[in-house]
Amino acid sequence: MTNVPTTEKWGMFEASFDGPSAGNPYVDVELDAVFSQFGREVRVPGFYDGQGAYKVRFMPDREGEWTFRTRSTTAELDGRTGSFLATPPSKGNHGPVSVSNRYHFAYADGTPYFPFGTTCYAWTHQPLAIQAETLKTLKETRFNKLRMGVFPKDYPYNTNEPLHPIYTPEESGKEDFDRPNPDAFRHFENQVAALGTLGIEADIIIFHPYDRWGYCDMSAEQDYRYVAYLTARLAAYRNVWWSLANEYDFLLDTKPMSRWDRFFHIIEENDPYRHLKSIHNGDVTMNYDHRKPWVSHVCIQNWDVKRTFDWREDYGKPVVNDEPEYEGNIIQSWGNITAQELVHRFWITVMRGGYAGHGETYSDAEDLIWWAKGGQLHGEAWKRIGFLLELLKEDVRSGLNPIGKPGVFPWSRVSGAIDGDVRYIYLGEHQPVVWSTGLPTEDGDYEVDLIDTWQMTVTPARKIAAPQPHPTRHGSEIRGRRPDAAFGVELPGKPYQAIRVRKKPQAR
Amino acid sequence: MTNVPTTEKWGMFEASFDGPSAGNPYVDVELDAVFSQFGREVRVPGFYDGQGAYKVRFMPDREGEWTFRTRSTTAELDGRTGSFLATPPSKGNHGPVSVSNRYHFAYADGTPYFPFGTTCYAWTHQPLAIQAETLKTLKETRFNKLRMGVFPKDYPYNTNEPLHPIYTPEESGKEDFDRPNPDAFRHFENQVAALGTLGIEADIIIFHPYDRWGYCDMSAEQDYRYVAYLTARLAAYRNVWWSLANEYDFLLDTKPMSRWDRFFHIIEENDPYRHLKSIHNGDVTMNYDHRKPWVSHVCIQNWDVKRTFDWREDYGKPVVNDEPEYEGNIIQSWGNITAQELVHRFWITVMRGGYAGHGETYSDAEDLIWWAKGGQLHGEAWKRIGFLLELLKEDVRSGLNPIGKPGVFPWSRVSGAIDGDVRYIYLGEHQPVVWSTGLPTEDGDYEVDLIDTWQMTVTPARKIAAPQPHPTRHGSEIRGRRPDAAFGVELPGKPYQAIRVRKKPQAR
Repeated sequence: MTNVPTTEKWGMFEASFDGPSAGNPYVDVELDAVFSQFGREVRVPGFYDGQGAYKVRFMPDREGEWTFRTRSTTAELDGRTGSFLATPPSKGNHGPVSVSNRYHFAYADGTPYFPFGTTCYAWTHQPLAIQAETLKTLKETRFNKLRMGVFPKDYPYNTNEPLHPIYTPEESGKEDFDRPNPDAFRHFENQVAALGTLGIEADIIIFHPYDRWGYCDMSAEQDYRYVAYLTARLAAYRNVWWSLANEYDFLLDTKPMSRWDRFFHIIEENDPYRHLKSIHNGDVTMNYDHRKPWVSHVCIQNWDVKRTFDWREDYGKPVVNDEPEYEGNIIQSWGNITAQELVHRFWITVMRGGYAGHGETYSDAEDLIWWAKGGQLHGEAWKRIGFLLELLKEDVRSGLNPIGKPGVFPWSRVSGAIDGDVRYIYLGEHQPVVWSTGLPTEDGDYEVDLIDTWQMTVTPARKIAAPQPHPTRHGSEIRGRRPDAAFGVELPGKPYQAIRVRKKPQAR
Repeated sequence: MTNVPTTEKWGMFEASFDGPSAGNPYVDVELDAVFSQFGREVRVPGFYDGQGAYKVRFMPDREGEWTFRTRSTTAELDGRTGSFLATPPSKGNHGPVSVSNRYHFAYADGTPYFPFGTTCYAWTHQPLAIQAETLKTLKETRFNKLRMGVFPKDYPYNTNEPLHPIYTPEESGKEDFDRPNPDAFRHFENQVAALGTLGIEADIIIFHPYDRWGYCDMSAEQDYRYVAYLTARLAAYRNVWWSLANEYDFLLDTKPMSRWDRFFHIIEENDPYRHLKSIHNGDVTMNYDHRKPWVSHVCIQNWDVKRTFDWREDYGKPVVNDEPEYEGNIIQSWGNITAQELVHRFWITVMRGGYAGHGETYSDAEDLIWWAKGGQLHGEAWKRIGFLLELLKEDVRSGLNPIGKPGVFPWSRVSGAIDGDVRYIYLGEHQPVVWSTGLPTEDGDYEVDLIDTWQMTVTPARKIAAPQPHPTRHGSEIRGRRPDAAFGVELPGKPYQAIRVRKKPQAR
C-alpha cells in the first residue's frame, strides 16, 4: 500500500506537476483540480510556479480521505489524480475565520476571534533581516491580524527598492505584467505562513495607489489575471483575508468601480473557502458599498469612532476600523496621534460593537517606520491594545453589543457593551466619582472590577447603593429618571477608566 | 437753571413716578415713555416696581441731551416729562455687545468681544454670602459672560429654596403668577449690574424646565407678561443678553413652538437696543431654528466640537457652544469630563471659528456646585480658558476664521484659524515633531511661537525649512502635494500644542 500523504484539517495540501515552460504558461495554460470527499466536490485553481512547475493547493475542512483530479487544456496536466488524508487539526489550529453572530467573528472550530490587527504595509518588501525583526516583534505583541500589501509602496518614507519585483523584469528592466515573478509570490506566501504560525491573520492588500513601478497601470486583463493568480496561490492558507485595496478610491481614475466588483467575483470564483473579503477607503466620503453581498465585513478608515455603531447599523456587517489614525509623530495627521488617544479610540470602538486596527508612525532617521516596513515598535499603545484583547478573550463569547441605544444619552458620551453575563462601561474622557447607568438592574451575585485602561490594571471595585439623584422634572412630570440599577460603583474620578461586571456562576 | 441729571453713554437713566397701587398694577396699568434726541424717538416700556412706584429706564447710545415724555392710560402717569444729559462713557464702558463680521462679536465702541462665558444657573437664588463669593471668584477669572436664570432651579443638587420667590406669594403660600415679586427682580438686576461692573455680560435665561414652584405652568398670557416685564426692567442694562431658555425643547409640551417665537417678538417690541438673543437646546436633534431673523447668534449644546464649522455654515451666524460638557466628576455625563478635555474642546471650537462656554460640576457634600450655584471653582480648566482668551485679545481684531476648508484633510483632524496677520494651528491629540500645513506661503518676517495650551506657556518656536516629503502618487500622477509653506516649525512631539504665527509689522 502506498503511503497516503497527510495534511491536518485546515492545513494546506499541495500537489506539483511538471508541465510546459515555453511561451507564457501564466497566460497560455489553464489548470484546475477538483477535490472530492464522498459526494462532495470542491474546485480549486492551479497555478504556474515558474520553471515548468505547476501546482494546486487545497485546504481540507473535513477530516478523512480526499481524492483529486486535475483538469487542463494542456494534455500532460490533465486528468492527474491523487489523494491525501486529512488528520485532526493540531493545537492552535482553529481553522479560518469567518463572520459570526452578524457583527462578530469566529474561527471555524467555534473559537471566538476578535480582530486586533496592526499594519505593516510593505514589510515583505524590506531586507530579510528587518522582516525577521518584524516577526520577532509581532511575537511579543498580542496582534492577531496584519495588513500587508502584495505590491511594494512608493510613498513618503518609502523610497527603497523592494526585495523582489512582483512581475518578471524584461531585459530593459521594465516588468512584464503578463508574467508574475514566482520568487516574489513564493516569498510573500512564506511570510503569510510564518504569520499563521504566530496565530496572526494575513489581511492581504491586493491593490493600492502608491506606485512607481507601473503596477497601478496594468490593463484590466492583467489585473484580472493577477487577482486569479494570487487567489490560486494563497487561498489555501487558512489565515488569509482579502483586502481588495488600501484607499481604492484613489485608483478610480484607472480602475473604475465595475472593475472592483469584478475583482471580488474573481476571488469568489477561485476561493472556495470564502475567506473574509473587504475593501478600504481613502476619503471618508468614498466608502465602498459594503452592502454588496460579496463583502463580508466593513473595512473603514475613520477617526470619528463614536460613530462606530452607526456604521454597523448602516451595513449590517462587522465593522473593522483599520485606521482610526495611528500613534506617532510624523507630519501627516493620519499618523501622529498620542498613544493614549489611540487606546481611547480602541475602547470606544469595541464598546460600540466594532473593531479597530493599530499602526505606529514615529519619525525615524532611516525611515524604518512600523506602519510601512515593520521592524520594531517604539510606542505605548500596542501594549494597552493587547491588554484589551486579553480582557475580551477572557469573557466574551458571542461578541460585544452596545448596552444602550447609542443615540440616547448617555451612550453618545460614554460607551458600554454587553455579551451575556459580562458587561463593560468605558468612560474615557468622563471621570465621574460614582456610576450606575448600564449596570445590571436585577439583583444578583456580581463580580465588579475597575479597569485602568492605560495603567493596564484590574482591581475589585467598590460597590455602593445605586445613587438616586433628585429627580429631573418639568413641573409635576418627572423626566430623566435614573434607571434602577441594582448597585452603583465608586470610581477614582480620573479618565480612561472602565467598569467590568461579571455575573458569578450559580453554584449547582 | 435746574440741574440736569447726567448718565454716561451706555449707562442707565431711570425716572420714577408715583402712581396707583390698588387692584393689580402689573396688569391694569400701561406705561411707556418716548425718549427723544433731535428728530429721533426711542420708545421704552415702563414697569411697576411695587408700592405705587413706576419706572422707566433708558440706555442712551449717543452723548448729549435727551428728553422724554411718558404715555399711560392712567392719567397721573401720562404726559410726564423730563430730560438728562448723556456724558462720555467712562473707562471700561464699551457699550453693549452685538454681532460683528457675521460670525463674531464686538462692543458698540468697536472693541472686539470674544464670548468666554461660564454658567451658574441659579446663583442669584443662593444665600447672599455665596453670591458674594461668586462675584469674588469671577473677579479672579477671565470669564466675560455668565449664564444665569431668572427662575430658581429644581434639579439634582438643587433642592434648596431660593432667596426670593419670583412671584408674589398669596396667603396660601402659592405664588400669584399675575404679580411679579419686585424684590426678586430688583435683586436680580442688582446682580446683573454687579456683573457689569466686572465687565461680564449677563446671559439671562428666561425660561427653563426644572421647576417645582409652578413657573413652568404659567398660562400663555402670564408668560407674555413675564417676558415684557423682564424686558422693561432689564433691557437698559448694557451687559444683557437674552437666552430665551435653557433646554427649551423639554418645555414644548406646555410651551409650543409658536409661543417661543412670540417671546422673541415681545423682546424685540420692548428692547430697542437689540441685545443679543438666542435659545438653547437640550437634545442635539432639537436645535431651535436659529435662522429665524430674531435670533442673533446660535446657542448650542453639543460635545462634538469638531463639527463647529458646520454649525456656523448651517446658520450663517456666530456659534456659541455654551455646553460642550462641563469639567467635573458628578455622575451625569454632561458634567464629568476632564479639565484637559474641556480646554481641548475650547481650542478646537475657537480654531474652527466658534466660541464655547465653561461650567464646573465637581461633587460636593453640600451640593455647592459652581454650574448651578456659583461659589468657588475647584478645577483646572478655567485658568487655561482665561489664557486662551488673553491670547485672542492680544492679536485678534475681526474674529478668527478657519484657515483651510474644515472638511478637507488635515483640517478634519487638526484645527487652524486666521485673522489678518495672526494665525494659529491647534494640534490637540496630534503630536507631530514638525509641521508646515497652514503656515504662511509667502516669505516674510514672521514671529513664530509654540503655545503649550495646558501648561499655559508661550515660547519662541524653532523655524526650519518647510519639509518636503516624498510625493504621494498614483503611477505618474502626483497626489497630495504638500502646499508650499514658507517654512516649517519644530514641535516637541507631545499633545495639546498650538503654533502661533504673527507677521512682524513693516518698518516704515
